[in-house]
Amino acid sequence: MIRIAIDCMGGDFGLPVTIPATVQVAERRADVHFLLVGNQHEIEQALRSAKPSRLNQFTIVHAEEVITMDDPIEVALRRKRKSSMHEALHAVREQRADACVSAGNTGALMAVARFILKTLDGIDRPAIATALPNQLGKGTTVLDLGANVDCTPGHLLQFAIMGSALAQAVDGIDNPKVGLLNIGHEAIKGNEVVKKTTELLQATPLNFIGNVEGDDIFKGTAHVVVCDGFVGNVLLKSVEGLAKMVSGMLKQSFLRSVYSKLAALIAKPVLSTFRDQVDNRRYNGAALLGLRGVVFKSHGSADVLAYSYAIERAYMAVQSQLLQKTIVGIEAITQNTQASHSNPSQELNNDNKPAL
Amino acid sequence: MIRIAIDCMGGDFGLPVTIPATVQVAERRADVHFLLVGNQHEIEQALRSAKPSRLNQFTIVHAEEVITMDDPIEVALRRKRKSSMHEALHAVREQRADACVSAGNTGALMAVARFILKTLDGIDRPAIATALPNQLGKGTTVLDLGANVDCTPGHLLQFAIMGSALAQAVDGIDNPKVGLLNIGHEAIKGNEVVKKTTELLQATPLNFIGNVEGDDIFKGTAHVVVCDGFVGNVLLKSVEGLAKMVSGMLKQSFLRSVYSKLAALIAKPVLSTFRDQVDNRRYNGAALLGLRGVVFKSHGSADVLAYSYAIERAYMAVQSQLLQKTIVGIEAITQNTQASHSNPSQELNNDNKPAL
Repeated sequence: MIRIAIDCMGGDFGLPVTIPATVQVAERRADVHFLLVGNQHEIEQALRSAKPSRLNQFTIVHAEEVITMDDPIEVALRRKRKSSMHEALHAVREQRADACVSAGNTGALMAVARFILKTLDGIDRPAIATALPNQLGKGTTVLDLGANVDCTPGHLLQFAIMGSALAQAVDGIDNPKVGLLNIGHEAIKGNEVVKKTTELLQATPLNFIGNVEGDDIFKGTAHVVVCDGFVGNVLLKSVEGLAKMVSGMLKQSFLRSVYSKLAALIAKPVLSTFRDQVDNRRYNGAALLGLRGVVFKSHGSADVLAYSYAIERAYMAVQSQLLQKTIVGIEAITQNTQASHSNPSQELNNDNKPAL
Repeated sequence: MIRIAIDCMGGDFGLPVTIPATVQVAERRADVHFLLVGNQHEIEQALRSAKPSRLNQFTIVHAEEVITMDDPIEVALRRKRKSSMHEALHAVREQRADACVSAGNTGALMAVARFILKTLDGIDRPAIATALPNQLGKGTTVLDLGANVDCTPGHLLQFAIMGSALAQAVDGIDNPKVGLLNIGHEAIKGNEVVKKTTELLQATPLNFIGNVEGDDIFKGTAHVVVCDGFVGNVLLKSVEGLAKMVSGMLKQSFLRSVYSKLAALIAKPVLSTFRDQVDNRRYNGAALLGLRGVVFKSHGSADVLAYSYAIERAYMAVQSQLLQKTIVGIEAITQNTQASHSNPSQELNNDNKPAL
C-alpha cells in the first residue's frame, strides 16, 4: 500500500481540483491510500460529491489553517504551523505517509518542507525538478528550477545525482543520460562554475554526456539537464510564456472569420491530437529533491487532469523508491570521491567508470 | 545615402541568400548603397541573376577568403584577414560604409568586429541583442545573448543603455521600458549580481521598470530585457527549440491521415495567418552593440526573406542614429554618476530623474 498525503487546500482552486483529482487516481489504483489534509467539513462535502467507489482509500486529517498563494515565506513557515501544508508534510515526516503532494506556493512549500523534513545526508540544498516535453514524446527532467540562485559546482553535481535518481524512479530510465546546460557543446564554453562542474561530473559514475544547449531539452538529447536555479527558472518561465503566446495566437487565428471558424470545426480532431501532444498538463508535478521524504509540487493553476498527473508522479516516485535511489547515488559519488582521493590515478582513468 | 557593407559569403548558404535579399532591399529603398563584399566573380554572377533595376546601388569589393561556420575564432581572427567578413568590417571602420551585415558565425563576427572596430568609450564589453516576438505583435529586445558569460552589475548597466538605444533607433520607441530579467518581480529576489544591478539601474535616467520574468518577454511587459549572456543564450536557444518542436508537431498532426490532410487544405489560409504572426524570420538580425560601428548578425540559416529583415534593421539603425543614441546614453549615465557622486543626496531623489 502506498500512502500519499494531499494538501487539499493548496493551489489557486483548492478542493474543487484536489479532491476530484485524488479520487480519479484512487479509482484506477487500488493500492493507494490517501490522507486528505485540510478543513474536515469541506473535504467531507467535496469527497461526497466526487463519489469514490472505495471510501476506505481515504482518511481525512483536519488542518485549521490554509497557506495562501500570496503568503510570504516567513508567514507560511512560522505563523501558519497548523496549515494543511504543514500537516501533510508532518505526515511524511512521521511516516504516516510516503509522499506529499501540494499545489501551494513554491517558495512556501520548499521552505516548510525543508524545515519539517530536513535534507538528506550529503545534500547541501534541495532542488526543484520537472519534466519538459521533448520531440521524442518523452519528458526531459530539468533542475534546478529556482530553489537555488547561486550555485557552486558541488551543488550542480548534487543536482545531477538527484535528477538522475528522479529520471530512473519516475520515468523508469535505466542509467539516464545527464547533460550540463551550457551555451555551447564544447568543453571550453561557459562560465567558470560550469567548466568546473564538467570536471566534477566527468569523475562520477553518472552517465554524463557533456554540455547541452537550450534546444537540446526539446530534442531529448539528455534525460536530465542540470543548471542553476536562476537559469532554470528563467528558462521554465520563458518557454511557458512562449507556449502560452503561441497557443493564444493559434486560437485567435481560428476565431478570426466565419471561414476560419468553419476550418476550425473541420480541423478540430487534428488540432486535438496536436494539443494532446504538447499538453503540459501531462508533465505537471515538480519534484522537491534532496529532502528526507518525497514531495511533489503541482502547478498552482492545475486543473483536475493536471493535478492527477502530479499525484501519479508522486506514486511512481514512492513505488520506484526515489529516496533509496537518491541515497545510493549520493553514496556512489562519495565513495568515488574518497577512492579517487586515496588513489589519485583513478581520476584520470575515466574509462573504468563503475556503473551506477 | 545610407551605405551598408554586406558580407556576401557568410552564413550557411552565402550568395544564393545574401544577393537576392540585398537586391530586394535595394529595390524598395533607393537611398541605400551596398558594398557587396566577397568573391568578385561569383558576386557578379549572382547579381546578374538577381536582376536589380538600379545597378549603381551596388559596388563589389573583392575578398579572397571566406570564414566558414566551423572556423575557430582564432582562425577567423588571425589567419583569414582577407576574408569577406574582415573586409566588410574594414569598410565600416574606414567610413566607406555606415553598417555591416553578416550571417557568418557569431563568435567569429564578434571577435573580428571587436578587433577591427574597437568598443565605444564607456563600454567594457560589446553585447548581442535581438528582438523576440511578443503577444502585442511587437518585438521585445533581449540582451546579452551570449557574448558575455560572466557579468558584473556594471556590465548589465551598460547592456541596459545599449539596449535602450537600440529599441529607440530600430523600433522607434520613445523612452523604452527597460526590465531586468530575474526569477521574481520583487526587488529582494535573484542573485547578488541582479540585486546590485537593480540599485544601479534605479539611479539612472533610463526608464527602468524593475524586475521582469521569462514570460514577460512574450507578454511585452518591457521593451528591453537585460540579462547576462549565459542566461540570454540559454533562453534564446530554449525558445527556438520549443518553437521548432511545436511547429514540427503541428505539421505532423496535419500529415497523419487522409482526413487530416484534407483538413490542412481547408485550414491552410488560417494556418498561414498564424505562421506569419509567429514567423521569427521577421525578427532576424541581431545587433552587435557597443562597437564603434553598426554591425548586424543574421541567423546563419536565414533565407532570403529573413536576411532582408536583417538588412532592414541595419538600415533603420543607421537612419535613426543608433551609434549617436548609444553615445548620448552612455554620457547621460556617466554625468549622472558624476553628479550623484558630487551631490550624494541626489541618489535618494529618484523622482527628479532627468529625461534621457
